[in-house]
Parts: sequence; C-alpha cells; structure tokens
Amino acid sequence: MADRFIAIDWGTTNRRVYIVEDGRAVETVRDDCGILAMVGRDYDEEIAHIRKSWGDLDVLIAGMAGSNRGWREAAYVNCPARIDDLAKSILWIEPRHTAIIPGVAARNGRPDVMRGEEVQLFGAITAHLVPDDALLCQPGTHCKWAVMEGAAITSFTTAMTGELFALLRTHSLLASQLDGMIENGTAFQEGVRDGRDHDLQSSLFGVRAAELLGRRSKTDAPSYTSGLLIGNDVAARNISGKTVYILADPVFGGLYAAAVTELDGSAVIIDSQSSFVAGVTAIRNRIL
Amino acid sequence: MADRFIAIDWGTTNRRVYIVEDGRAVETVRDDCGILAMVGRDYDEEIAHIRKSWGDLDVLIAGMAGSNRGWREAAYVNCPARIDDLAKSILWIEPRHTAIIPGVAARNGRPDVMRGEEVQLFGAITAHLVPDDALLCQPGTHCKWAVMEGAAITSFTTAMTGELFALLRTHSLLASQLDGMIENGTAFQEGVRDGRDHDLQSSLFGVRAAELLGRRSKTDAPSYTSGLLIGNDVAARNISGKTVYILADPVFGGLYAAAVTELDGSAVIIDSQSSFVAGVTAIRNRIL
Repeated sequence: MADRFIAIDWGTTNRRVYIVEDGRAVETVRDDCGILAMVGRDYDEEIAHIRKSWGDLDVLIAGMAGSNRGWREAAYVNCPARIDDLAKSILWIEPRHTAIIPGVAARNGRPDVMRGEEVQLFGAITAHLVPDDALLCQPGTHCKWAVMEGAAITSFTTAMTGELFALLRTHSLLASQLDGMIENGTAFQEGVRDGRDHDLQSSLFGVRAAELLGRRSKTDAPSYTSGLLIGNDVAARNISGKTVYILADPVFGGLYAAAVTELDGSAVIIDSQSSFVAGVTAIRNRIL
Repeated sequence: MADRFIAIDWGTTNRRVYIVEDGRAVETVRDDCGILAMVGRDYDEEIAHIRKSWGDLDVLIAGMAGSNRGWREAAYVNCPARIDDLAKSILWIEPRHTAIIPGVAARNGRPDVMRGEEVQLFGAITAHLVPDDALLCQPGTHCKWAVMEGAAITSFTTAMTGELFALLRTHSLLASQLDGMIENGTAFQEGVRDGRDHDLQSSLFGVRAAELLGRRSKTDAPSYTSGLLIGNDVAARNISGKTVYILADPVFGGLYAAAVTELDGSAVIIDSQSSFVAGVTAIRNRIL
C-alpha cells in the first residue's frame, strides 16, 4: 500500500500543504495562512480541519510554526547538522502522528538561524539534485546561503535582501521609483556590479541622484535597485569560480542566477518545492 | 549700521530660520515646516509672514525649497564647486531681496546631489573651522561625505544611513528590537567593527539571530544596529589615518566621531549651525 502523509511548510506569511504519496506531491495547496494569520487561532483545530479534507494522515510540519511565535517551539539543531540530527530531534505533538521538524542554528562564529529551509537543503541532497559538498542559496525575504559538507549543513548566512527591497519599495525616499517591473537586463546587471563594487548605503542614494540628474530611465530603477541588493548579497559570499545551487522558483531564481553568473560563478537552479518534498519524505522515512 | 538679514535652512521635514546680524545668528527659530508641510501652501505668503515677524529684511534660502518639489528649482552648480560659483548662480525670486542658493551636483563618476549642505561646507571653511583641504561628514537622514580641495567641493558621496535606520526601526522584522536608547558603548563599537568587516544585509539579520540565540542583551540591540549602519558607512569612505571633520549636533556627531575613531581615523566635531550661518553670510557678502 502507498505511504501517504501530509507535509506542511508553514512560514511567517504563507503556508503550503502537500499530500505526499510515495515521495511525490500528489496535491499542493498554498495559502496566506502563515503563523501571523494564526495569531489567536488554535493550531490543533487547524490540523483537525486539514485532516478533515485529506484523511487522518500523519502530519509533518516545518518552518516558523516551530518557532516561539508559532505553535510549539522546536529547539534548534546545531551546525554541523545532518538530516539524521533533525529526525532525532523531532518534536512530537501527538506521538507518531503529528510532529514539528526543528530548525538549525549556527552558534560558532556569527550566530544565525533557519526554520524550514533545512528541509529543502537536505531534500536537494537526498534527491541527488546537488552533490553532498555544495554551496546552496535560497533567495527570499531572508536569503539563506548554506555550505554543505558531506551532506551536513556546516555553516550558513542569512541576508535581509528581500525584506530590504520591500522596505525601500514601500516606505523609503525611493518608493515612487521602485514601483515597476524587475527584469534581468542591462540595468539589473549594472546594479549587480555596483552592488559588488560600492557600499550599499551610498549606491541606494545614487538611485535618487541618477533620477534627479537624468542619468537613468525611469523604468530601469526597479531592476537596477534589485540588482544592487542581490549583487551586494551575492558578492559578499565569494562565489567567484564556484557553483551555486539556487533553490527557488524559476523567476526569482533567475535573477539570482544572473547575478551569480555576472560575478563569475556558475548557477544551477533547483526546484525548491521538489526539494522540500524530497527532504520531508527522507525525514519521515527516518522516524516511521 | 549693522547688516541684518534672514537666512532659512529649508529642508524636507524641518526648517530653521536665522536672523543674522553682522555674521552672527541673533535669533533662531526651528519648526517642522519643511517643504513636505508646504505642499498646497504659498511660499510668497510664507515669506511675507516671516518678514512680518522680523522686519522687511533680505531673505536668503538654502535647501530643498530650491528643489523641484519646493518653491522654485535652482539649477545645481557642478563639482568642482566654489562658494563664488554658488553666489554667481543664485536664483533671485525678488531681485536683490529674496533668493535661493543652488545645490551642488557631482556629474563625473557616480552621480550625486546636495541641497543645503553646501552652505555648511563652505561656511566651515570661511569661518576657518576646517582647512581648505579636508574631508567633511554631515550625518543625517542622508549622510554627506564631501572632499574639499582648495576650498572647493571636488567630490562627494551621500549614504542613506539615517533613513535606513529609521526604516528598520519602524517597519522591519527588527522593529521591536530597535525601539530604545542608542549610546556609544561596547555594543555600538562592536556594531561599527561588524559594519566594517561584514556585508550589511547579513549583519542586519544577525541582530535577529543574536536575540533568538540569547547572544546579545535586549537593551544593546539599538546601539549595536546603529553601530552597524554607521560603521558600514564610515568604513566605505577609507578614513583610516585621516581626519574627518563632522558637521553635526554634539549627540549625533558623537556617534560618528566614535565610529571614525574606532576605524583608525581622527574626528573633529564642528557645529553645523555656526557653519551654516558663516556660509550664508559669506554668500550674502558676495551678492550684496
């Protein structure tokens, strides 16, 4: 009989529910019911509600639902972290039926944390989408850069790249200039190089100055500024001559891939949802 | 008889009116009537209103009132810019009675603009508060770094340092951590060094990670984060071994001075209001 369970990637603003059958997602539902939308609501009821739709299956949860602002706090596993460590440290809500996968913490050197991304990272490796030793990048509100060695997360860095762009577009002096399409073209590439060559705080003001002095077309400002932030992020990871495996959807991943290429690295885009499903299945197989 | 005139430093959010007599400010009024508050209001009436209080004196205006979002646009003077260039390019609203001092543009290399700061820069030099060849820093929402050579502004750079901190404190993931006192202490200094040694986007997420992992006291987060942004700004100006003349009020100037010192420069704090009055007087003397 087929092994069937429910996997939930439960983030801050979004949630994705997967019905996994023999390691493949047979159904996927994405909504904006992240942990922020769960404030004041009951997680037990929410899970019961999900089971009503899909059957009384086991539920495996990753992401911010396991944080101190979510359902129940699942203590971080420390770097170097292997998939077996995650499986061993799983937080059972209802024994052998409902569980939360812990996040990973970097405590040596600069402190850092992740919740949810670790499942994708391990999934990319167990599905043989990336080698056991690799540099992986997960673009997003908070972009993760993970160094994997021997299939373990040995160190990682988070950058506020996506959040900074959103802040600038919504609330800053540059807001009126940033409300438009972002595409990988000349302006984006110029931004990537400036993001590498100059400090971000002055380059950002330069977006305004360029407009006042008629130096850049109005439609180019969003792409240039996105390039600045992404280029600054990528350049700080010393990727020149390296292969970066980018776990993302094709659109957002495409911008990071373009920046990696512009900064003399090689980029391989890996589907982040397939990686998640592979990772959560591999963890399930270890706790069954 | 004493020479008496009205000088206005008219910014985006604030305005400062000085009654200047023989080169000294005898009265100063500061309010929040910047150009944003002037939208839909009449500048002529506003000036008439000011003259009603202080007499029918000549009025000299600097700052954003001379921008395309202010009263009347005064075309930028290009770098290298001397005080004589500003005086020659002054925009008369009412001949020999009401005028706007132009801003300065850097068009060679990276584009940049200033409006209002140039008066302080030249004032600091004409009042002999700084030498004719000097590196000057004007902290604020948009921090200016000006290179003066032979009493001319030869190049300058603007950084969004103050605005970024305000965005982070008001709207970001870090908002709840940044609502507190900023002081020059161990946390600030650590931030300055991290701002020099690491990229800003990952250091900022580190503020959150440090809290989650219990690595920094809650009260230290605002000072550390301010140090990060200021240190990142200062380090990008290559000030090691140089003297930086900081035009600011003592509190804000003190933080920049501390960062300059931490990054192996020497800091001299110059009073920005005295510099403005000296600069506007020197310009008046050239157009009388």
